[in-house]
Amino acid sequence: MSLNSIFQYFTPKDKKVFFPLFEQAANNAVVMATILVEAVNTTNPATREDLIRQIDKLENKGDEITHQLYLELGKNFITPFDREDIHQLASAIDDVADNIQGAANRMSLYRIDDFNEHIKKLSDLILQGSIELEKAIKELRDLKNKRNIADSCIRINSIENQADHIFDRAVADLFLYETDAIRLIKYKEILSSLETATDMCEDAANVMESILVKNA
Amino acid sequence: MSLNSIFQYFTPKDKKVFFPLFEQAANNAVVMATILVEAVNTTNPATREDLIRQIDKLENKGDEITHQLYLELGKNFITPFDREDIHQLASAIDDVADNIQGAANRMSLYRIDDFNEHIKKLSDLILQGSIELEKAIKELRDLKNKRNIADSCIRINSIENQADHIFDRAVADLFLYETDAIRLIKYKEILSSLETATDMCEDAANVMESILVKNA
Amino acid sequence: MSLNSIFQYFTPKDKKVFFPLFEQAANNAVVMATILVEAVNTTNPATREDLIRQIDKLENKGDEITHQLYLELGKNFITPFDREDIHQLASAIDDVADNIQGAANRMSLYRIDDFNEHIKKLSDLILQGSIELEKAIKELRDLKNKRNIADSCIRINSIENQADHIFDRAVADLFLYETDAIRLIKYKEILSSLETATDMCEDAANVMESILVKNA
Repeated sequence: MSLNSIFQYFTPKDKKVFFPLFEQAANNAVVMATILVEAVNTTNPATREDLIRQIDKLENKGDEITHQLYLELGKNFITPFDREDIHQLASAIDDVADNIQGAANRMSLYRIDDFNEHIKKLSDLILQGSIELEKAIKELRDLKNKRNIADSCIRINSIENQADHIFDRAVADLFLYETDAIRLIKYKEILSSLETATDMCEDAANVMESILVKNA
Repeated sequence: MSLNSIFQYFTPKDKKVFFPLFEQAANNAVVMATILVEAVNTTNPATREDLIRQIDKLENKGDEITHQLYLELGKNFITPFDREDIHQLASAIDDVADNIQGAANRMSLYRIDDFNEHIKKLSDLILQGSIELEKAIKELRDLKNKRNIADSCIRINSIENQADHIFDRAVADLFLYETDAIRLIKYKEILSSLETATDMCEDAANVMESILVKNA
Repeated sequence: MSLNSIFQYFTPKDKKVFFPLFEQAANNAVVMATILVEAVNTTNPATREDLIRQIDKLENKGDEITHQLYLELGKNFITPFDREDIHQLASAIDDVADNIQGAANRMSLYRIDDFNEHIKKLSDLILQGSIELEKAIKELRDLKNKRNIADSCIRINSIENQADHIFDRAVADLFLYETDAIRLIKYKEILSSLETATDMCEDAANVMESILVKNA
């Protein structure tokens, strides 16, 4: 940072700026996950296509929120938490959204119309994880209820563990029963995006745990 | 950093050291992308193999430049930009080169000889992105023409968007028309490396935008 | 970090805390790699399954060590090396363990029973890399024998290069001789996890080289 610009960095607006953006990003992920659950449960292909287009648009919105967070990080010298933690938390929420959109996009691109229980269960776990993420993010603002944040992080870890097991079983099933290699590739990629979305919830939880430790 | 070594970190050589290395790295990516475009457009397999070997060697050269940048970052306490930005920018340029080499290497390894329009167009976008990247990097030295850097970043973002759409269409086509699963895997991996190279140009642009914000 | 918690960060326990954890993490990777080599060389499927279960448990143990390292990083303001280096070194060792477990897990999940020379050789290189990693980590504590650390890093780089070449040849062979696309996918993923484990050894070596430069 150049010396002649250092003073503008000291502004008291840090909390006013960062928390609303984090809350918007987390809420956007919850909305995307809600629509994903609808998309894998509907039996109407046209409805599904429409839902997937909504997910696409929300992912763009999420990108803009993340970009805004990075810009604010560049402009603000004083931040409510360590800069690195803010950057990693913003990235992790963005990665949740990216992987929801990636899974939905592949469902459309690969013309998938048979949604098995593994896909439905993983989508449901992404929604649960996103909801816990949003709850924890809302508590970050004042850190009065650290116990609540810690509890959400523990639940996110447990959700990710469940997703891991479902993913492993789903992939094992594919290799046992799917004889069409191209179908196998399609389903494996969709399962992989879904599972990665829960990994990214866990990444966000890890950053929040680290923030809790530093503010103990 | 240990206290007894802190003084050697304050040397005024920062600009002399970092900018030439960044310019070499960016130029190396442009040369690699130029050769890639030649390789996917030649109809002579022997010529193509020779070009791919050249890309391999340039990737090694790029690795050395990146390594040198990291070493200088370790040795210099005062840096022209935030240390994290220098690290990320060097990594992003290295990742552009890695993915160009990865795509070229797979073309050779998988004995690909049919280069469709999607592959040619993606290679062309990598070259355009690398050229914009080099232009922006050259302007970083004095930051007199911030507008030029910002414009290059905007063009890189647009190039990455175009690459995304071509990649999605190319993969959809593969799943619709390619009945040989093994050929599908080969082409999908090559397309994926090419598309990732443009993502890495965008990563570099994001770091430069963040540098601009901090020096506004 | 909040002002009212800054004082508790200044404790002289840094060396007592970080080095034993790093040594445990590196040793855990060596044990995992040793068991992996056994698993790919045994002809008894039941023995192999048992070994893979052991690798699973050790990976959990490694996760706990890494988590402990991150917690200490959050709690300690003074660290023996740059915080970023500690974080990256812990991540890299964790990634070695993750990829060993990932490869072993796939061997079990995909019911692989034919372990070719490429798989055996890559497993052996992971073991060699992990042993060099542990040697270097033990020397980090006092930095008296920097030459030894540098030598281990050079050997890790050479091991990673060998692994790259074996991986490329193994994948080329798959695409030349394997006509069953599903078997091709299975083997390619296992080879990829094994090769990535040696990449992660190299990542760890890069961090240690950077620590050496800063403490020159």
